[in-house]
Amino acid sequence: MEKKIKVAIIGFGNIGKFTLQAVKEAPDMTLQGIVRRKVNPGEDIVNGYSVVDDIEKLGEIDVAILCTPTREVEKFAAEYLSRGINTVDSFDIHGQIPGLRNRLAEVAKAHGKVSVISAGWDPGTDSIVRVLMEGMAPKGITETNFGPGMSMGHSVAVKSKEGVKDALSVTIPKGQSLHRRMVYVEVLPGYDFKEIEKKIKEDPYFASDETYVIQVESVDALKDMGHGVNMKRKGVSGETHNQLLEFNMRINNPALTAQVLVGAARATQRLAPGCYTMIEIPVVDLLPGDRDRWIKLV
Amino acid sequence: MEKKIKVAIIGFGNIGKFTLQAVKEAPDMTLQGIVRRKVNPGEDIVNGYSVVDDIEKLGEIDVAILCTPTREVEKFAAEYLSRGINTVDSFDIHGQIPGLRNRLAEVAKAHGKVSVISAGWDPGTDSIVRVLMEGMAPKGITETNFGPGMSMGHSVAVKSKEGVKDALSVTIPKGQSLHRRMVYVEVLPGYDFKEIEKKIKEDPYFASDETYVIQVESVDALKDMGHGVNMKRKGVSGETHNQLLEFNMRINNPALTAQVLVGAARATQRLAPGCYTMIEIPVVDLLPGDRDRWIKLV
Repeated sequence: MEKKIKVAIIGFGNIGKFTLQAVKEAPDMTLQGIVRRKVNPGEDIVNGYSVVDDIEKLGEIDVAILCTPTREVEKFAAEYLSRGINTVDSFDIHGQIPGLRNRLAEVAKAHGKVSVISAGWDPGTDSIVRVLMEGMAPKGITETNFGPGMSMGHSVAVKSKEGVKDALSVTIPKGQSLHRRMVYVEVLPGYDFKEIEKKIKEDPYFASDETYVIQVESVDALKDMGHGVNMKRKGVSGETHNQLLEFNMRINNPALTAQVLVGAARATQRLAPGCYTMIEIPVVDLLPGDRDRWIKLV
Repeated sequence: MEKKIKVAIIGFGNIGKFTLQAVKEAPDMTLQGIVRRKVNPGEDIVNGYSVVDDIEKLGEIDVAILCTPTREVEKFAAEYLSRGINTVDSFDIHGQIPGLRNRLAEVAKAHGKVSVISAGWDPGTDSIVRVLMEGMAPKGITETNFGPGMSMGHSVAVKSKEGVKDALSVTIPKGQSLHRRMVYVEVLPGYDFKEIEKKIKEDPYFASDETYVIQVESVDALKDMGHGVNMKRKGVSGETHNQLLEFNMRINNPALTAQVLVGAARATQRLAPGCYTMIEIPVVDLLPGDRDRWIKLV
């Protein structure tokens, strides 16, 4: 039996909780504990795992799975890499990925460690499929149609508006990579719904999309973590047109993100020091056990 | 401008002809010529490219794309690797892939070269998708449903029967990775169709599948190089069930195989010496140009 990979989970929100489940199910990993900013009395054990405020307290760690808000990923990744711990995250601001990769690559290489960034489903596994489709038909157009499903980023943008008690933004695919936004809001007493609706539609998150804002009594009653994607490419292989490629999924969003993070955490044990996005990792390195086992099933 | 990758095409059947088109369209490659077993007088130029009987005559070659019959792949790959030339092929006998990989890895490493094997669509790009789906939902069942489309292997098996002038075996998906075989045969004068039908149904290629044999006047009139696949996985991410993943394609078969070979040929320039299947290669290495260009689009 190979030595198990020692994992720490950093942050214990939605993704952190699903990551705990995925690490428990991984045959080649052992969960050393969870790191939170603050550990309240009586909250130092979750499902039998230690919860601490400093990773040092968990002993030797091979890889830290960052389940923090996206904007805190860089700070934590740089810190853990500097302390000699590999990191993985699901950083999801598409345009900022190349910069993050280059900065973390320097830190990782300086400490002989590995960081895998943006290891969720989009960016993440969808990115792998898009690149693969591009390789299969180099000329053509790829559509990425999301949903129906909750968009965390859009929901947070609405929640930050004055007078909004709770909010949920659901992404509806219109085709051709276009989306409709269905925004459900709970309004605080004394605020005008029409005024809030106007502010949401003007927000850059929504301004370029067809957006509907609907007042509801309970946002919580609408929440469902299912999501999905439909990716299509119609393109040209060599000189041959009309090559039709398609990828679909209907999934529990945080459960899939957590599973991809766990695969990426495994890959950190197999890569040369540096920082990688998912398209730079051989897919076999996401899976447990010997390569030979999977090559047999190729 | 980076130095272009110098390519030779080995064999000039169906796949070889589509590979010529795909290499011509590749922005980072230059086709040095085609190698055939025998060059007849007047056939030493095809579409402006040299046709020779020995790769030496083409000057310096970075990578040889093997478009030979599957059973001749190993001989040619070992020969070219020994002569200091990287190789790619679309070897398609699934059960024999691990052995081929291990034997060619030895030759490749001894000569500091790279070989990518089984770089078609199945095995090949389908294998990448299957492994990715396994990583996304480690428990569950993946179905691979082929067709409708011509099966080369099955057609060749029928053609080898006595009394068969020409044959075509079409694969029809029944779901759950099960397939129906529709076999069209042209019978030579003096042979009994019923006898031929019986022999086909007893052949190990067909014995375990629902098989229909149909006598036709012209097999050639039925030939269409379209093919397809539907891959489905319903599985579990962490502890969350009912994760639904699906990949579909409808493609010209040899055109896609040729395009994948060209991507794999590019990857040989970026990998450490050894022999690789497609699941062992980062997908970004199939694409032309800098990684940075593609990471921006992640």
